[in-house]
Amino acid sequence: MAKLPEDEHPIKAFGWAARDSSGILSPFKFSRRETGEKDVTFRVLYCGICHSDLHSLKNEWGFSTYPLLPGHEVVGVVTEVGSKVQKFEVGDNVGVGCMVGSCLSCESCANDLENYCPKLILTYGAKNIDGTITYGGYSDIMVTDEHFVVRIPDNMPLDAAAPLLCAGITVYSPLRYFGLDKPGLHVAVVGLGGLGHVAVKFAKSFGAKVTVISTSPHKMKEAIENLGADSFLVSRDQDQMQAAVGTIDGIIDTVSAAHPLVPLIHLLKNNGKIVMLGAPEKPLELIAFSLIMGRKIVAGSGIGGMKETQEMIDYAAKHKITPDIEVIPIDYVNTAMDRLAKADVKYRFVIDIGNTLKSSS
Amino acid sequence: MAKLPEDEHPIKAFGWAARDSSGILSPFKFSRRETGEKDVTFRVLYCGICHSDLHSLKNEWGFSTYPLLPGHEVVGVVTEVGSKVQKFEVGDNVGVGCMVGSCLSCESCANDLENYCPKLILTYGAKNIDGTITYGGYSDIMVTDEHFVVRIPDNMPLDAAAPLLCAGITVYSPLRYFGLDKPGLHVAVVGLGGLGHVAVKFAKSFGAKVTVISTSPHKMKEAIENLGADSFLVSRDQDQMQAAVGTIDGIIDTVSAAHPLVPLIHLLKNNGKIVMLGAPEKPLELIAFSLIMGRKIVAGSGIGGMKETQEMIDYAAKHKITPDIEVIPIDYVNTAMDRLAKADVKYRFVIDIGNTLKSSS
Repeated sequence: MAKLPEDEHPIKAFGWAARDSSGILSPFKFSRRETGEKDVTFRVLYCGICHSDLHSLKNEWGFSTYPLLPGHEVVGVVTEVGSKVQKFEVGDNVGVGCMVGSCLSCESCANDLENYCPKLILTYGAKNIDGTITYGGYSDIMVTDEHFVVRIPDNMPLDAAAPLLCAGITVYSPLRYFGLDKPGLHVAVVGLGGLGHVAVKFAKSFGAKVTVISTSPHKMKEAIENLGADSFLVSRDQDQMQAAVGTIDGIIDTVSAAHPLVPLIHLLKNNGKIVMLGAPEKPLELIAFSLIMGRKIVAGSGIGGMKETQEMIDYAAKHKITPDIEVIPIDYVNTAMDRLAKADVKYRFVIDIGNTLKSSS
Repeated sequence: MAKLPEDEHPIKAFGWAARDSSGILSPFKFSRRETGEKDVTFRVLYCGICHSDLHSLKNEWGFSTYPLLPGHEVVGVVTEVGSKVQKFEVGDNVGVGCMVGSCLSCESCANDLENYCPKLILTYGAKNIDGTITYGGYSDIMVTDEHFVVRIPDNMPLDAAAPLLCAGITVYSPLRYFGLDKPGLHVAVVGLGGLGHVAVKFAKSFGAKVTVISTSPHKMKEAIENLGADSFLVSRDQDQMQAAVGTIDGIIDTVSAAHPLVPLIHLLKNNGKIVMLGAPEKPLELIAFSLIMGRKIVAGSGIGGMKETQEMIDYAAKHKITPDIEVIPIDYVNTAMDRLAKADVKYRFVIDIGNTLKSSS
């Protein structure tokens, strides 16, 4: 008979999990493995709520298993390290993002792209090497191989650091890889949510002229005055879109709802690039001719490797880039999910795990 | 009243043109402008038949004007040069490809990418600067600004040189630009027609392992034995396609008929690229997730700039790369079009203009 989650491993752990596709989170007793020789064990202080947590909770992608304990924007303080851990010691502020394991031997891993390793182990809801299911950061403790742990720089607020571990790296990596990090470029960000608002900040820090593209005209003031965007395009306004044809070097598209791609391609200059970060369920329509006329590119990008994640958070600390967050107690998490489904958050909920998650036992 | 084509300009010219969307070609008297100070005038010897000639003749893209005199793979010998022509003299072997003009001042033109200039003037069926319509290479004489003329190297056969001016540069340019010109890469070519067979030859010359992907199993022998491909994939064979998942660095997709894109994306390694050269009329279905999982790229590319076209033809001469052609007389051209519509040619028809086009006047 399979062991209960609370008896699988020696370290007692506690968090909030969903038991079915209602997605409702409630207290959940489970366990973590002992601190292995390469493991970092840390007490969780904050965990961001990513939109993919909501998708997973409700099994919208069809591969969720329950109990499901989400959270892949996890920040805390180290309480124990294994004998062979080199980079961390007790008391360090650390973070874990979307992944906690990979093969570390394939071509992707060898190139610091663990995120594209075929044996990638996600931080929650995935099968770990020992066959048990991974549980995420809506919990009091994490035990993670140091390879998948990043150091939080001293001057970075721990609550605001959390969303950088998924939203931050997800936008930073393509801005770098696709060369959209050069001063003077015109970069557009489609969608002003958890990812989009950080993309605006990184792109501005690289010296780009930044345009936010959104279906919601009421976001303009916020985008320009608070986030520092240079201009704003309402994607449903044909005249605005027409006037912007051929003016943009690169587009970071953060929208995971189905939306038309070709009008965005038309906004690109020759050699321009649009990078998709969201994955709409339905296929998008692509007209090849729109790419051929101007040697344009449609690309995809998913999070980033561990080396680049550390680079990103160091860069963010140096340039004082932090996500805009709303810190909530754990017992607000179901309400937060409802609000997130309505995009009613500026721009990321972060759960105050350290002060509000209390085991009843 | 508008002048007749034969009276528009001082130089008498003769070719074969279609009068309507039946696309049937027949003898046509027209005229060329006087040799301007920057113009090269040449007697046409050979002209390749591109598949887009067929599309244009039948107005399949909806913007053809008649009379339509096709031909943008034009090779000949210089008979006169303008006073300010610097690169050519009488007796030189020269060629003209898909374009005969551009603004020469925009960012694309400044970067030797006249092919992406918004004021690009196509070699036939386009409005020239003086307001007259351009006529292509199914004709006895061409008058072209030297900027849009390339030199045919001495050791390059003139008939086989012709298809390089469109098919050749169309595949060479993306192989170079998208970094698919490095030894040891695995490059696939989708479609084994006029473009595809030259793509195989260029990719092999760069040191790639080359796989041909085709719906037609009977092309395998030809692809491997005659064109030098290393392997062959039947795109409708699920098992073959499954076995090749994640093995290819770059795909040059030459097919302009509608075809599924996602199975091709699955063949790519992480960071892999598929470059569309053909433009199917209907939108292609793109699943963003297939790009995100591996940071893949779908791109487009259209011909190439003049500097690169000269580089391509010099490279082809040096590496003895020539298209496989079937040389035909002009009065076979309508039959050739019927055969081309059925893909019944290995791999490019070239009209022997010099020996077979005779004005009846």
